[in-house]
Amino acid sequence: MTLLLGGARSGKSAHAEQLATVFPAPWTYIATAQAYDDEMAERIALHRGRRVEGWETLDAPLDLAGAIESVPDGRPLLVDCLTLWLSNHLLAEHDVERESERLAQVLGKPRGPWFVVANEVGLGIVPDNALARRFRDAAGRLNQKIAARATHVLFMVAGLPMQVK
Amino acid sequence: MTLLLGGARSGKSAHAEQLATVFPAPWTYIATAQAYDDEMAERIALHRGRRVEGWETLDAPLDLAGAIESVPDGRPLLVDCLTLWLSNHLLAEHDVERESERLAQVLGKPRGPWFVVANEVGLGIVPDNALARRFRDAAGRLNQKIAARATHVLFMVAGLPMQVK
Amino acid sequence: MTLLLGGARSGKSAHAEQLATVFPAPWTYIATAQAYDDEMAERIALHRGRRVEGWETLDAPLDLAGAIESVPDGRPLLVDCLTLWLSNHLLAEHDVERESERLAQVLGKPRGPWFVVANEVGLGIVPDNALARRFRDAAGRLNQKIAARATHVLFMVAGLPMQVK
Repeated sequence: MTLLLGGARSGKSAHAEQLATVFPAPWTYIATAQAYDDEMAERIALHRGRRVEGWETLDAPLDLAGAIESVPDGRPLLVDCLTLWLSNHLLAEHDVERESERLAQVLGKPRGPWFVVANEVGLGIVPDNALARRFRDAAGRLNQKIAARATHVLFMVAGLPMQVK
Repeated sequence: MTLLLGGARSGKSAHAEQLATVFPAPWTYIATAQAYDDEMAERIALHRGRRVEGWETLDAPLDLAGAIESVPDGRPLLVDCLTLWLSNHLLAEHDVERESERLAQVLGKPRGPWFVVANEVGLGIVPDNALARRFRDAAGRLNQKIAARATHVLFMVAGLPMQVK
Repeated sequence: MTLLLGGARSGKSAHAEQLATVFPAPWTYIATAQAYDDEMAERIALHRGRRVEGWETLDAPLDLAGAIESVPDGRPLLVDCLTLWLSNHLLAEHDVERESERLAQVLGKPRGPWFVVANEVGLGIVPDNALARRFRDAAGRLNQKIAARATHVLFMVAGLPMQVK
């Protein structure tokens, strides 16, 4: 399992797609984004448009562990992305620690070449509002949890990977 | 062409100056900053004050590609910085994709040792306002475009370079 | 002296504790946090709870240089963290350049295995308010100053160290 971390527009998704498609099709793409406004709908369409034939797309804004468990053994998998999934749970006021733990269990036992995208959001100024601080902390803890179980961790900078692990 | 990426006060400009002045003078410095307030005027003065004799300074808040084209063959060049230039175009409501593409064309054909500074701004929390999000996206895309054409990419951390490419 | 830089929840403190406790106890922990609200009190309690026996804790929200000078020769030391210390001085309207310079002098002459934690806060969007920008600039300058005197600099990503120096 490879974790791809990076900031906004750092080329995480495109690089993860390149890595996954080194393996033979079909590939599974699990999207966690919810199109709750036009801006987000546009971003989702952009990501979908870039993917070539051979991709099967599953939507899993909340039950990501379940979606991953449904993927056949040996199938190349791209999860995009953990941070939106976490944000969906936080907004729904779910127990994010329990959800993160369950997800880590599933991702920690990969059954094929799995590529997982997540955002690094903790390198700016401390946010003013308490919800943003809680989100930032939860995202950082989740990234640490998944990174500890990954065989490779990449930090993306301007479309280029730096190997962290 | 070397791209130096980093956060605020990460030592990008000072390191770029060190790299450029390894080559014999004269050196050309293209500044993209506009002194629209006192704080910015102070920063510009600070940067200018640090540069020793031997530097020729051009101001190019908008026509950066044109300024770069005017630089003689073989001349060491420092562009500081892409992110302010992008911000100037965004505020002027210009077509930043077209401008970025033109700039990438010019930077992709270096005619000497060229050093280009840009900010990484996508590693914090998603900004509240839509303009900041658009800026963040455009800056990330521009960094990717230039990084793809660079021979070397450095990520600056506390004044120290990490080699990305 | 080793400087550990990273974002929020990047695992800086935990990794620094691991590095310090490779050396024999007792270890000195200098905390710069002030529990001015419940959220901060909780974070401090969490950090204290993680540390095992063998740690002696000093509180130094302002006189960090003095606290470090009081540590016996050869004693493993963890300073956590520079960025909160800087923020305490900024809020108290002290001369942060002078304080930073004094601190750099003391940290530049380590008398044992010293580990220093600091936040990288400059990789997000430029903050709206002037105080946050001043803080961000001062934090970046301080990080550069200490990094220049460190023998090792680590950039923490999701709990994993990247060696910068």
